[in-house]
Amino acid sequence: MAEHADTTKCRPQLRIRRVSLDTGRENVVVISRHSSALRPDVFRGFSRVELRSGSKALLATLLITDEDSLVGRDELGLSEPAFRRFGEPAGNLITVSPAASPESLDAVRGKIQGRTLNPDEINAIIDDLTHYRYSDMEIAAFLIGSASFMTSDELVALVEAMARAGTQLKWPNPIVVDKHCIGGIPGNRTSMIVVPIVAAHGLTIPKTSSRAITSPAGTADTMEVLARVDVGVEEMKEVVAACRGCLIWGGHVNLSPADDILISVERPLSLDTREQMVASIMSKKLAAGSTHLLIDLPVGPTAKLANAADAMRLRKLFEFVGDHFGIAVEVITTDGRQPVGNGIGPVLEAADVMAVLTNDPRAPADLREKSLRLAAHLLEYDPQLRGGSGYARARELLDSGAAMNKMQAIIDAQGRSSCRADIGKLTSDIVASEDGEVSDINCLQLNRLARTAGAPIDKGAGIKLFRKIGDRIEKGQPLYRIYAFDHSELDLAVAAAEANSGYTMVNRRTPTSRTGS
Amino acid sequence: MAEHADTTKCRPQLRIRRVSLDTGRENVVVISRHSSALRPDVFRGFSRVELRSGSKALLATLLITDEDSLVGRDELGLSEPAFRRFGEPAGNLITVSPAASPESLDAVRGKIQGRTLNPDEINAIIDDLTHYRYSDMEIAAFLIGSASFMTSDELVALVEAMARAGTQLKWPNPIVVDKHCIGGIPGNRTSMIVVPIVAAHGLTIPKTSSRAITSPAGTADTMEVLARVDVGVEEMKEVVAACRGCLIWGGHVNLSPADDILISVERPLSLDTREQMVASIMSKKLAAGSTHLLIDLPVGPTAKLANAADAMRLRKLFEFVGDHFGIAVEVITTDGRQPVGNGIGPVLEAADVMAVLTNDPRAPADLREKSLRLAAHLLEYDPQLRGGSGYARARELLDSGAAMNKMQAIIDAQGRSSCRADIGKLTSDIVASEDGEVSDINCLQLNRLARTAGAPIDKGAGIKLFRKIGDRIEKGQPLYRIYAFDHSELDLAVAAAEANSGYTMVNRRTPTSRTGS
Repeated sequence: MAEHADTTKCRPQLRIRRVSLDTGRENVVVISRHSSALRPDVFRGFSRVELRSGSKALLATLLITDEDSLVGRDELGLSEPAFRRFGEPAGNLITVSPAASPESLDAVRGKIQGRTLNPDEINAIIDDLTHYRYSDMEIAAFLIGSASFMTSDELVALVEAMARAGTQLKWPNPIVVDKHCIGGIPGNRTSMIVVPIVAAHGLTIPKTSSRAITSPAGTADTMEVLARVDVGVEEMKEVVAACRGCLIWGGHVNLSPADDILISVERPLSLDTREQMVASIMSKKLAAGSTHLLIDLPVGPTAKLANAADAMRLRKLFEFVGDHFGIAVEVITTDGRQPVGNGIGPVLEAADVMAVLTNDPRAPADLREKSLRLAAHLLEYDPQLRGGSGYARARELLDSGAAMNKMQAIIDAQGRSSCRADIGKLTSDIVASEDGEVSDINCLQLNRLARTAGAPIDKGAGIKLFRKIGDRIEKGQPLYRIYAFDHSELDLAVAAAEANSGYTMVNRRTPTSRTGS
Repeated sequence: MAEHADTTKCRPQLRIRRVSLDTGRENVVVISRHSSALRPDVFRGFSRVELRSGSKALLATLLITDEDSLVGRDELGLSEPAFRRFGEPAGNLITVSPAASPESLDAVRGKIQGRTLNPDEINAIIDDLTHYRYSDMEIAAFLIGSASFMTSDELVALVEAMARAGTQLKWPNPIVVDKHCIGGIPGNRTSMIVVPIVAAHGLTIPKTSSRAITSPAGTADTMEVLARVDVGVEEMKEVVAACRGCLIWGGHVNLSPADDILISVERPLSLDTREQMVASIMSKKLAAGSTHLLIDLPVGPTAKLANAADAMRLRKLFEFVGDHFGIAVEVITTDGRQPVGNGIGPVLEAADVMAVLTNDPRAPADLREKSLRLAAHLLEYDPQLRGGSGYARARELLDSGAAMNKMQAIIDAQGRSSCRADIGKLTSDIVASEDGEVSDINCLQLNRLARTAGAPIDKGAGIKLFRKIGDRIEKGQPLYRIYAFDHSELDLAVAAAEANSGYTMVNRRTPTSRTGS
């Protein structure tokens, strides 16, 4: 290793050139095959290299090219992320040498072989990760090595290391509440109702949300229909000082950069472990300065948690980590058998939210009730409130219009959105193929259909449900309507829905007393 | 998944353009940021995409560019490996869509979660791997998932799947012998002596070897000093038909393409598991049509195996797999406490080999003895040979010049090398800092020093040892000589050697009777 590092001293220097290659999160650099700095067999295409200029160093993946227009023989082309992170101007001198792996990889290898890691090792791993010293492969090694077994001490150390790696928010208030749902349920935009209620009561609730990754909408995508959500830390603090709450995208606040990196590898691998989920959520809440946290675990056959036992195990893990860091964590399980609200896709969901906040009689009752229930839990964190009166207080704030006024104030403080907020002009109804009662709705299939229709890229694309579990329907009546902007996308979504509507019906000859949940 | 695949139908078509980007093994494609086929948020930089043209499909990693010189708006740039593997001419039409993960990844995820895989699942994984459908990250997932635990059934299925994925050689002879060393010991070019002896006796020994990956020389690099080694399957068969043996690089024979891919990920991660090692070696031997195999396991403090217990476990694993496939496997442990022979680096090692083959009195005795011992084991696979007479027969073939004649025939059949075969003109001697007896030689450090001096890129760079374990030396006498072509590389190697010569001395006041092994 030492020898490798030393050899950079005598390597020819190249001039930095900025090349417009968007390589996602990866640092990629391009070198000419005729470069004097390139020694065949030392550097291979896609091998890892270390860039150096003075005291600055960066690890990157190497591409070798014959395209003279891209880089000259005495140049090194830095792709967008590499150029930004290296922070040296174009034209400056730089050396390139084979990269040694980060030392913390020894700990990762230890973990793979079944060793337990100490907090220093975990800190070193997270530090190297956050500074882009790990390749995707090395990140995968850490994730998979940790997937099979992680002690509670390791989990706690991981949460702490991840929370310390990014922005750490401090608030002047003794009580800072937050809510989090583990996701997976279409619709379900409770945060956009809970935050205005809780802020209207006077509690501090600085909510950051994610954008859709594999779903048709994240809370940030839906809120963006109404307001700007690309808000940084300073502006976030101003909004919270003015309104007690906010509803912004977490991407500019940088609460857990390590988590963003880990997720970018977990996602394509579809790795989903309880410990990583808890570390991801709790590191962000710790960094966000939350003192009281409500976690929503939807349970249902097509939800992330299939049964109460899974939910219980996850609850214990959240509580354990919360206790360790002095965060009051309350975990509740909710009905995850079907979508919450009627809209799926940012614009349609935003319409549901505004219908609830404006007490529109056509507002989806399930979204209203679930939001009130969650708000009730959060309100009872207020020591001034009598035990058991949270729900009544939440309903009072919603019914009186106080929550809607607060939402308007938050929208004004964050700024109006510049997004297109119209609903897809192309529509098609998916109808029941027989008489019956809705017994099951497949959340995964509805998410897929809404994405096929164009959500969340087209904010107004998506699905509006006309029936929920327990509702009776006759053959030929619409189950839901698909909205799109693009003919071919509508056709694809309709074809997919006709193959699998996501709805299961039972044909009950005798009308039953069962109603929608 | 079905929806994803279908959406390709309506995607705009792009024209294939070949772009000169050497991206190693990875399929990389480049698209213009202004392309009509690019939908932001669907494709991100470095995301995985699927290319389609008619019935052809290929998975690749996407780069997005603003560089108009690289790709136009209606073009898709295919990097070298992607262009070669897709096999469609430039200008043809192609669609690009987000890639679904290979289905066999479900089995990989199962393995990560502790499930045992059946042969069909392992076959599907190896098939997808071999067809470049796995990203590096996904390959790492498989390796790490298998690293913690693999049943013997899984190992056998893996060996078989890997062997079937590439070239499978058939030989007209009932006995096809082979030898393999797990590596790690500098020098140690026994194959180049064993193959001529065994072939001179009349047994078939079609030997393929690797090039250096992390060492200063592989057998293929050293043989290349004397003969062409970039030999394909048909030519290999001709050489073996003419000479009974060959000494070629395995890279063009493609015996286990899956192994080449796995190794390219194991190496940067420094993953080293017994099961993967056995799968790697045995899949190649099975594909190579070997009937009798001798495995050399060097044991020593800086060898790959530190003690006899480790070697025993590995031996059992080789024997188990060999028995399953009907390959007669013999595993022997050898002295891995120090380099074998005096030279380290291709040209210096080739000189040792030729000194042994020509019975030069200055030839290194340890290399000669070890080669005779290995050849003796192989010769006894000949049913015509009396038990116990293998060693005598090997020595007879070596001493008589029959082995040297065979080596010349092999060199002639493979063709003369076009490589530079001179020894580095720049030299520096590393001397003993005190009187004493050599008690230890660090193989890892000598490998590093030889690489720093320029081996294997400069074939004539490396190290020549003057002392081995048990030899007495006086202060100021040379331990070894470093050879290089480049002043700065010589300086770096000397500086590194002065910091750590790799030699440990004990100062025995009384001369002892201990001699070099």
